[in-house]
Amino acid sequence: MTKQDLFEQILKKKSYLCVGLDTDIKKIPKHLLATEDPIFEFNRQIIDATAQYAVAYKPNIAFYEAMGVKGWQSLQKTIDYIPKDIFTIADAKRGDIGNTSELYARTFFDKASSGLDFDSVTVAPYMGRDSVQPFLAFEGKWVILLGLTSNVGSHDFQHLKVEVDGEQKALFEQVLTKSQEWGGSDAMMYVVGATQADKLAEIRKIVPDHFLLVPGVGAQGGSLEEVSRYGMNKQCGLLVNSARAIIYASNGEDFAEVAAEEARKVQQEMEGYLSAIL
Amino acid sequence: MTKQDLFEQILKKKSYLCVGLDTDIKKIPKHLLATEDPIFEFNRQIIDATAQYAVAYKPNIAFYEAMGVKGWQSLQKTIDYIPKDIFTIADAKRGDIGNTSELYARTFFDKASSGLDFDSVTVAPYMGRDSVQPFLAFEGKWVILLGLTSNVGSHDFQHLKVEVDGEQKALFEQVLTKSQEWGGSDAMMYVVGATQADKLAEIRKIVPDHFLLVPGVGAQGGSLEEVSRYGMNKQCGLLVNSARAIIYASNGEDFAEVAAEEARKVQQEMEGYLSAIL
Repeated sequence: MTKQDLFEQILKKKSYLCVGLDTDIKKIPKHLLATEDPIFEFNRQIIDATAQYAVAYKPNIAFYEAMGVKGWQSLQKTIDYIPKDIFTIADAKRGDIGNTSELYARTFFDKASSGLDFDSVTVAPYMGRDSVQPFLAFEGKWVILLGLTSNVGSHDFQHLKVEVDGEQKALFEQVLTKSQEWGGSDAMMYVVGATQADKLAEIRKIVPDHFLLVPGVGAQGGSLEEVSRYGMNKQCGLLVNSARAIIYASNGEDFAEVAAEEARKVQQEMEGYLSAIL
Repeated sequence: MTKQDLFEQILKKKSYLCVGLDTDIKKIPKHLLATEDPIFEFNRQIIDATAQYAVAYKPNIAFYEAMGVKGWQSLQKTIDYIPKDIFTIADAKRGDIGNTSELYARTFFDKASSGLDFDSVTVAPYMGRDSVQPFLAFEGKWVILLGLTSNVGSHDFQHLKVEVDGEQKALFEQVLTKSQEWGGSDAMMYVVGATQADKLAEIRKIVPDHFLLVPGVGAQGGSLEEVSRYGMNKQCGLLVNSARAIIYASNGEDFAEVAAEEARKVQQEMEGYLSAIL
């Protein structure tokens, strides 16, 4: 999917909502456990209910891997089920030496190899350029690089002051700067946690044109209003993820209906913020 | 497996060789392609041939994931097949926010959940403490944290000078220092690439007692002699990985035999270096 395609979806749905499919067998409604593939059945109903409000879906791969072979089967069915005009994100946080990252790229982008065909994958930056570039070799696919994450542990290293060419900056700022040598805003996005919304204005100066994937709104405490105020650019430039607050809004038989209602509320709020650029 | 168990294996086999099971369907001998599960069949024969020379096996998870569901099945059979007294490493380079890392820990450590039961997993440090700790909650299991990697891209961020408490050091040095607050040398190891063996003496000052997992000897150009000279401690403290140079030493019907011969050569060289601490 191109950047323009994504922007058009945002305009059409008046939404920049990404629904996180962090599907946990322990948290889904009990009545689904009797179905053949409860994880897929849950996802299918969530997708049917929220697709009109969402421009992206983001399965967190850990939730599927943790169930082994069965989990990968559910993941494959899920990704096949998502309508093709909706952007898909493998939240996998991979990254290894070049020849290995090439295989991770095949995992998420090459259906003939793995059965999966995501539009994008999240990648960790610690191993540098050659851990990222193999993903960029896939035409039309995206790398979403970790910039500044939403968790407490982000303070351990990401905020450390580093010295580059005599200038002091935070490590995450150098990640944003350096990685632009590897790919442009038509093939790379960045993860920026909503819990650090005050940093978004500074981040926008470094990456004015890139899309940012923003987790941490909702359960983790980030504010959609602040994220939108500081993070939006002329092409929106935001995909705001919400998982638990939508998919687990009810754990009764009405879970899909309630999820739709929660997604609709977020979409309506987003519609308001989008008026600033329309 | 405890640190003492691992050291005893090293003494018994006079070896600190880790065999990397980077098993690629495109590189294994052609005659195996007719078997039901060529990846597992290759691994099985490699394990049978090298087990007397190796103290650890390290499947790189990317190679299995890239084949989707089938790959995970081969991985599960492989891990079940490895003798229990040999240390197993899931080279997965995972790491995410706390509740997600918990699921990655289940993936590799909780057989009832995923079918897999590794002794250890490699973890990327960028997301900090809460991305690492869930793995440490599993008694008897190990985190192998990326310190200084063997690839060219390691120069992008790992060597950046950071300032901590008024002191200048490289980012990877701060990773080694900070992470010791999370777990000791009985539950954590570090990845240190053999291609940067000159740094090993400095690294040993920061982590004198920890085991180091050292990739990059062989195909990537690192020297076993230098790694052993600068990296060994009183309990050996090294697991040196070799993958391609052993498992793909021949791609004929004699591949397992030739792999055994290559593993034996490495073991013999290691036996020499071990005499320094025996």
